[in-house]
Amino acid sequence: MRFAIIGAVLLSGLFGSGAALLGQQKVQQAETPVEKWTGKTVMLIGAHADDDALAHGTLALLQAQGNQVYVVTLTTGNVGTQDPKLSRTQLAEIRRKEELAALAELGIPGDHYINLGYDDGMLEFEDRKAVVENLVRFIRKLRPDVLFAWDPGKNFQRWHKSDHRAAAYLSADAARAAMWRLLFEGQITQEGLKEYMIPEYLFYNDYDHDDENLWVDISSVEDKVINASSKYVSQYGPGWKNYNPNPGEAEVKEMKNAAKAHLRRKDGKPIEGFRYYRGFPDAIGK
Amino acid sequence: MRFAIIGAVLLSGLFGSGAALLGQQKVQQAETPVEKWTGKTVMLIGAHADDDALAHGTLALLQAQGNQVYVVTLTTGNVGTQDPKLSRTQLAEIRRKEELAALAELGIPGDHYINLGYDDGMLEFEDRKAVVENLVRFIRKLRPDVLFAWDPGKNFQRWHKSDHRAAAYLSADAARAAMWRLLFEGQITQEGLKEYMIPEYLFYNDYDHDDENLWVDISSVEDKVINASSKYVSQYGPGWKNYNPNPGEAEVKEMKNAAKAHLRRKDGKPIEGFRYYRGFPDAIGK
Amino acid sequence: MRFAIIGAVLLSGLFGSGAALLGQQKVQQAETPVEKWTGKTVMLIGAHADDDALAHGTLALLQAQGNQVYVVTLTTGNVGTQDPKLSRTQLAEIRRKEELAALAELGIPGDHYINLGYDDGMLEFEDRKAVVENLVRFIRKLRPDVLFAWDPGKNFQRWHKSDHRAAAYLSADAARAAMWRLLFEGQITQEGLKEYMIPEYLFYNDYDHDDENLWVDISSVEDKVINASSKYVSQYGPGWKNYNPNPGEAEVKEMKNAAKAHLRRKDGKPIEGFRYYRGFPDAIGK
Amino acid sequence: MRFAIIGAVLLSGLFGSGAALLGQQKVQQAETPVEKWTGKTVMLIGAHADDDALAHGTLALLQAQGNQVYVVTLTTGNVGTQDPKLSRTQLAEIRRKEELAALAELGIPGDHYINLGYDDGMLEFEDRKAVVENLVRFIRKLRPDVLFAWDPGKNFQRWHKSDHRAAAYLSADAARAAMWRLLFEGQITQEGLKEYMIPEYLFYNDYDHDDENLWVDISSVEDKVINASSKYVSQYGPGWKNYNPNPGEAEVKEMKNAAKAHLRRKDGKPIEGFRYYRGFPDAIGK
Amino acid sequence: MRFAIIGAVLLSGLFGSGAALLGQQKVQQAETPVEKWTGKTVMLIGAHADDDALAHGTLALLQAQGNQVYVVTLTTGNVGTQDPKLSRTQLAEIRRKEELAALAELGIPGDHYINLGYDDGMLEFEDRKAVVENLVRFIRKLRPDVLFAWDPGKNFQRWHKSDHRAAAYLSADAARAAMWRLLFEGQITQEGLKEYMIPEYLFYNDYDHDDENLWVDISSVEDKVINASSKYVSQYGPGWKNYNPNPGEAEVKEMKNAAKAHLRRKDGKPIEGFRYYRGFPDAIGK
Amino acid sequence: MRFAIIGAVLLSGLFGSGAALLGQQKVQQAETPVEKWTGKTVMLIGAHADDDALAHGTLALLQAQGNQVYVVTLTTGNVGTQDPKLSRTQLAEIRRKEELAALAELGIPGDHYINLGYDDGMLEFEDRKAVVENLVRFIRKLRPDVLFAWDPGKNFQRWHKSDHRAAAYLSADAARAAMWRLLFEGQITQEGLKEYMIPEYLFYNDYDHDDENLWVDISSVEDKVINASSKYVSQYGPGWKNYNPNPGEAEVKEMKNAAKAHLRRKDGKPIEGFRYYRGFPDAIGK
Repeated sequence: MRFAIIGAVLLSGLFGSGAALLGQQKVQQAETPVEKWTGKTVMLIGAHADDDALAHGTLALLQAQGNQVYVVTLTTGNVGTQDPKLSRTQLAEIRRKEELAALAELGIPGDHYINLGYDDGMLEFEDRKAVVENLVRFIRKLRPDVLFAWDPGKNFQRWHKSDHRAAAYLSADAARAAMWRLLFEGQITQEGLKEYMIPEYLFYNDYDHDDENLWVDISSVEDKVINASSKYVSQYGPGWKNYNPNPGEAEVKEMKNAAKAHLRRKDGKPIEGFRYYRGFPDAIGK
Repeated sequence: MRFAIIGAVLLSGLFGSGAALLGQQKVQQAETPVEKWTGKTVMLIGAHADDDALAHGTLALLQAQGNQVYVVTLTTGNVGTQDPKLSRTQLAEIRRKEELAALAELGIPGDHYINLGYDDGMLEFEDRKAVVENLVRFIRKLRPDVLFAWDPGKNFQRWHKSDHRAAAYLSADAARAAMWRLLFEGQITQEGLKEYMIPEYLFYNDYDHDDENLWVDISSVEDKVINASSKYVSQYGPGWKNYNPNPGEAEVKEMKNAAKAHLRRKDGKPIEGFRYYRGFPDAIGK
Repeated sequence: MRFAIIGAVLLSGLFGSGAALLGQQKVQQAETPVEKWTGKTVMLIGAHADDDALAHGTLALLQAQGNQVYVVTLTTGNVGTQDPKLSRTQLAEIRRKEELAALAELGIPGDHYINLGYDDGMLEFEDRKAVVENLVRFIRKLRPDVLFAWDPGKNFQRWHKSDHRAAAYLSADAARAAMWRLLFEGQITQEGLKEYMIPEYLFYNDYDHDDENLWVDISSVEDKVINASSKYVSQYGPGWKNYNPNPGEAEVKEMKNAAKAHLRRKDGKPIEGFRYYRGFPDAIGK
Repeated sequence: MRFAIIGAVLLSGLFGSGAALLGQQKVQQAETPVEKWTGKTVMLIGAHADDDALAHGTLALLQAQGNQVYVVTLTTGNVGTQDPKLSRTQLAEIRRKEELAALAELGIPGDHYINLGYDDGMLEFEDRKAVVENLVRFIRKLRPDVLFAWDPGKNFQRWHKSDHRAAAYLSADAARAAMWRLLFEGQITQEGLKEYMIPEYLFYNDYDHDDENLWVDISSVEDKVINASSKYVSQYGPGWKNYNPNPGEAEVKEMKNAAKAHLRRKDGKPIEGFRYYRGFPDAIGK
Repeated sequence: MRFAIIGAVLLSGLFGSGAALLGQQKVQQAETPVEKWTGKTVMLIGAHADDDALAHGTLALLQAQGNQVYVVTLTTGNVGTQDPKLSRTQLAEIRRKEELAALAELGIPGDHYINLGYDDGMLEFEDRKAVVENLVRFIRKLRPDVLFAWDPGKNFQRWHKSDHRAAAYLSADAARAAMWRLLFEGQITQEGLKEYMIPEYLFYNDYDHDDENLWVDISSVEDKVINASSKYVSQYGPGWKNYNPNPGEAEVKEMKNAAKAHLRRKDGKPIEGFRYYRGFPDAIGK
Repeated sequence: MRFAIIGAVLLSGLFGSGAALLGQQKVQQAETPVEKWTGKTVMLIGAHADDDALAHGTLALLQAQGNQVYVVTLTTGNVGTQDPKLSRTQLAEIRRKEELAALAELGIPGDHYINLGYDDGMLEFEDRKAVVENLVRFIRKLRPDVLFAWDPGKNFQRWHKSDHRAAAYLSADAARAAMWRLLFEGQITQEGLKEYMIPEYLFYNDYDHDDENLWVDISSVEDKVINASSKYVSQYGPGWKNYNPNPGEAEVKEMKNAAKAHLRRKDGKPIEGFRYYRGFPDAIGK
């Protein structure tokens, strides 16, 4: 492949076909505000069944506006507990149930949740080519207009803890690979898929929001977001140390209060922030 | 896991539930002749789109008798040509078309052909855990009563050229892994699959038939087999050196004659031979 | 390294120092019958906590005769159950407890049991260099006079199911590597270990006993062996499908009867058979 | 696992048990000045036998104040010489001797030095899962209150040369993995270890001190630090090009003068600087 | 190996021999302006046959001034096309031809172009040790005074898309490894090569030029650069979507105009910018 | 790729071009006795600098008869010594010197010795794809008429100690890969090499000669063989335990006597035995 910038510039200058897409690379601002998007296919890739919570408000908005939202999670989350009584199997099942319940609060149907089944905490040790190949398959199947992913970094590689780091880089690599007909070509010649280039990206982080350039007002779906949060009993609630599938009303209320208290706000409004990028996946770090 | 033999013996002796299956391990003879099997799900794993030709007669018989036959091929076969004009892409497409045409001759529907899309000639360099995981997924989905595979070896590891060697061992390892609920558990907790143990095996080789213990009379489907063979124009016919998608009648006839001339025979009848095994996949080499 | 045969021959012919060891390579018979060994350090490497059962009689004999017996197991066995209620953690703990109980019946102390902690069913996917390095460390620490291991094969590579196959080859490779001062040298310069060559080997298989050349009469320890077998409740007994840590008396009796019934016998006596090898680990397959 | 921030916030807000630890994440300042720490277990992970020199003053202080200091080095350093006469073996031995001599100057006992024995210059090519597993084992054994390590980076992944890069990331990944009961569980079920979370971290770099937030006045141990430096004859002294195990007095003096001249200073006092972090290892890059 | 800074300081302070090289590490400015370099061997490592275009002006200058310029490309570029008619083979051949034509415009002879033959888009999945070993071989053969490479990052790891990321880190790692006699020693004992330390580096990026500290005025070779650009028909020209080996005059002119329009400029002059580094490869990120 | 047998048969039956080569697959006997071969290019692949000694007589004969003999050795042999004074570097140099001296005795020129430089004892842990790629490169460069290699096994995989096992399988895999234009295609598009099929094979073993089908009378070169053997002082002579580059005359004589005494003989004549194979590399195990 060529290097992206000169190629993009020359191509847009000369031959036009890519210009609409490539010309605006410098601005990196969504043409239409996210709040007005409709009819798009949206795909989020996370490592764990709750990484998507960093974008729940935006996903709920998009779903409500007539977009198709898919959540792809790489691991089963079968390690993340401090409750000594839970087994890997139980935890995997609990977290699937919690995720489906949370997505339901956002209006996202259960069959839009795809879990690739890797073991939690081991993602960085899986064969990277095999994981990328799996993600490329889903990108080529779903053909999303927008990808939400852990931010791999602007100019420099962002630090994340291991699973998130793996998820960030593998997502970026998969987005790039998916667009080339001659990469993972078996999917094309044998499975009827076609190469596909994702044109827009919203990258999320759990802290350090310095690189954000797009904020979504989630006031209208605040309740959905808080309700969704309260479904992750094994993760944010009392179940973290002592899992109870049916927490009492008081506990749920406390979870919701805490979730509400910790929503990020801008000008008094609850928001979610992202690094927005549009263009070739080759230049995702721009 | 335990070691298979003592376990099997004790189990069958003591508690009976596994006895029907395990008691006959010594004989290794099919209870019902293959020629009379019906209502079974049959899965063949090969490396290339024509490895199944070693069992085409048997597959045709089984299909005709009301069994469901699936052919799973690991690679796209995108390297195997001596024609300097063909590209990887073209060859992959040609071989898919040839395989579907051959299966059609045998009565096997096109959607029973599954190609995992690996690059030809590179299978032994793929991450083995990832390939096994993929095969386990298909075993748990199809839940075959019988597995056809390259023979991994009786007592000793059979030598095959690289892709066949990989296919033989990875198939055996996948058959074993598929039966354990706690292996590749993500498939179970996230995809709704269930562990599954394949009970019967027919192992095929391309030469050295010394370990065969079961032969199938394919007289009744001889024509189908020969017709199927004539579909692999890029492999056995003039297309090997100079591919022509539409070989002339004379060439097709020559291909058929050659195929007929080289059918294996026993007592004058065309046959296919296998090493038959029944029992725990742990003892597949017995 | 050189190839073993010419080296051995020349060395023994010329310079004598290795002759006592190497001269007898052709015979491959223990100088002293195993039944009379004493004062030796004995190490067994298996994949699962019960692979050693294939040599329990011999180990019990050796322990009783004043040898030091160590059992090194590569995996925790945390997958091998058909009981849907057991978790990986529980199974790993159960199997450790069972193994310690079985070894206690044989007179082998609990601190002679070493488990390397790999996940069951995944051994073949672990980094082979890292596993060999770990085994080399224990060989250099224990400095065994005799190694018991899954037979990697005489002349040809023996087929075993995946974990046993890995255990067989990795044991053979570790035995070879341990003797070279310049391999895994960090163990020598940093941990105070010294290179070490194991001089004698007893290879075991679970079926196909054709290559055996040494049989041990275990009459004198028959009861110990049967008692030890009855400890593997999760594997050979009713616990295989429905684990109960405290099987009833009748069940234990049945397990013992079954174990007794299936002891291998020669001339009416209970025996265990092995492929015995003495010499350079380089020529283990001879 | 969940993502750290929301989890931390909710947990601390709701249920308190983690609050003492997690509440102060924003400030990232040690509650008690390092100069007053006592009774702690301190673990440093480095790639080479002298990486710890970046923290020698602080380690000497801590040791003197009644803390237990352990130095874990990943490689034997068996490559780092410009002296054409030295072999890998000799260099490994020299560097071990030098390290022990340096630690002795700081008051750290020899058996607190642990070298994992990897080959110098090859750490980035070792199987990462195996190295992490080894580090997790030592974290769970030593159960340090504080970890010193190469800084993996604040927000972004810090660049280090290859071995240091590997050491930085593998240390961070091991710190994270060590706290989860279900990761590397074999260590728990088979070796009697328990999961463990390191609560405090001091990250060091060899240049670019912009992210430092904690400086330790090492005036009181300046001599010890300089003396320790003079022990690394093969690295900083004349032995770099022409190793002499017993450098002359003048050479030693020159080494000490140079070491003194290059101590970092703040307000005229010799100091060492670190990026201090307290909290979940998941958010180490915060 | 030791950590670079203290070593460098002590070494330069004490023993002088390395001082000329190491003393100026802080300034990181070329002693002689690049525009006056002569008699040097220059090596550029890129991932694709056109990555070198980011330095074409500088390379043309250097070549004209009597330096020996070598371009080492890791992949064949056999994936980077949007033309559905091109095969991997054809694209690899086209890109080789284009690269040779572009280099010819710069005055660089064809036999100074070395392509390591890896598949495009898969570089990050190749065995890193094997790729580093190959690069080390060429560094030890060519013994360049200057290395041009993708910038691995100053202080932090720079984000690049996957192949560029791999090329950046592997180049940095190879530069470091090449200087150690005991690394990849087989090249030294068997191939007659010698260890070698590259003393100067010019790192290039495709965007984000914030870390640049050296700019080369390429006015005198502007035409050569533009002519060279016009050779990459498959990448920047109409061939990107519909390859024609012989584009019409108008198309070529348009390509040249576009190339000219997009030359970076400083004070009105066409320039190329780099991050210049001089010193130990260990501290390349400084 | 297709499976070899049916393909071969059909091809030879139908289209003739491959018939001269393929028709005789069943007999597996050299058309011309080895003793009369001339004008051929001969390539031997071994793991260590003396593996070729198993074929020294035949190589000497072939060289004398006007064939070009090349010896390719995978490792430097830098581990194989019992002399505690030797370093890896020294041993690698000694073994190179010994090998060149031995080859000189056989009349084989020094520049026909190619050592790939891998570390001894670690070959099985190297990336297999990278090693195969390197061997394929030399096969395509030398284009041998005959390949000598460790026997990978007839029908079953032969057991060898680890390095020999790796050498056997990697050689077989490389021979197969070399013939396919689309495998390791970078060598073809970038280095000017062409795909190549080796037509004849002589496989050697160090023990178990049961599968041999071709014996070469080496009477006429017996002295050369013995003289060559006496050059491996570090391996077969007194240097094994205490290396002396210049062994005394008596020691050399003893080495020669031992070598002579241990030549294999048939009908009183010194011989070397091989498993001869002719045909497609796909069916090497036939």
